[in-house]
Amino acid sequence: MDSQDNQHHILSLIVDNEPGVLARIAGLFSGRGFNIESLCVAETTDPAVSRITLVTSGNMAVIEQIKKQLNKLVNVIKVKDFTGSKCVQRELLLIRVKADAQNRAEILRMVDIFRARVVDVGNSSYTIEVTGDEGKVTAFLNLLKPLGIQEVARTGAIAMARDISKEGRNGKN
Amino acid sequence: MDSQDNQHHILSLIVDNEPGVLARIAGLFSGRGFNIESLCVAETTDPAVSRITLVTSGNMAVIEQIKKQLNKLVNVIKVKDFTGSKCVQRELLLIRVKADAQNRAEILRMVDIFRARVVDVGNSSYTIEVTGDEGKVTAFLNLLKPLGIQEVARTGAIAMARDISKEGRNGKN
Repeated sequence: MDSQDNQHHILSLIVDNEPGVLARIAGLFSGRGFNIESLCVAETTDPAVSRITLVTSGNMAVIEQIKKQLNKLVNVIKVKDFTGSKCVQRELLLIRVKADAQNRAEILRMVDIFRARVVDVGNSSYTIEVTGDEGKVTAFLNLLKPLGIQEVARTGAIAMARDISKEGRNGKN
Repeated sequence: MDSQDNQHHILSLIVDNEPGVLARIAGLFSGRGFNIESLCVAETTDPAVSRITLVTSGNMAVIEQIKKQLNKLVNVIKVKDFTGSKCVQRELLLIRVKADAQNRAEILRMVDIFRARVVDVGNSSYTIEVTGDEGKVTAFLNLLKPLGIQEVARTGAIAMARDISKEGRNGKN
């Protein structure tokens, strides 16, 4: 109902590194009609646990419902919701863009401005990697679109809480 | 049997951007006992399709079996196996590491060498982002381990074929 808060939410799950856990979580979302916008799963430093970062959308009631359902799963050790909290959010984009004599300089200018990197050069294309939050990555993508995007692969967001200890004023929080 | 080729394989899937597709793919892997080491799913420039990049391990017979099963799924549009082909492979790591007066300079040296970036600074920690192939990211992680890792989030690999047109000698391939 409160459509204005129908926005992106980043959830970070610490789960057992066992077969079937990802299937159960993905099944929970699809079975209840919750939306997964992006998802990353990879090992952590502890080989027994994996970390899943997923981006979903919905109002607060839906997000609360999702968190409750996730917490009910046996293999889910911890659910962290980064909504409204200070966090570092990053995703990685690989993009291959048409690079002919006319637009090479322009592409390299944009690579510079976005602190991106050219990671492969072909006769008529550049492959570029860029990291940033969703806004930055999407902006980069939109700027390159008119030049001719040949292929795109992106990871979806991962996130980590900011170290709030540096904020002396809010030390009590 | 041929255990020496029991190695990592990167598969890239173009799938319909519909609810339940990820659950079906994850279910296929867990149901048949195939292993998912990491997985990323995110939208592409076409909102109707998503791209899933997953890393799995097994010998060639297992990989062939996985590809066949994936190709049978209705919502899977294309399966690309990067095994043995020239590709750019990248993943993103966010890591928070203990940074006290003694080890700050050492951390910044490593950040420099690995072309990483410090993205957040706390009273007693640095949060660092680094991109690279699995080997580079794991090497960075192992080097920081003795200093005290507080938190790790990684995306898992994404990959893109190299533009082979630049290789004049192999132009026929």
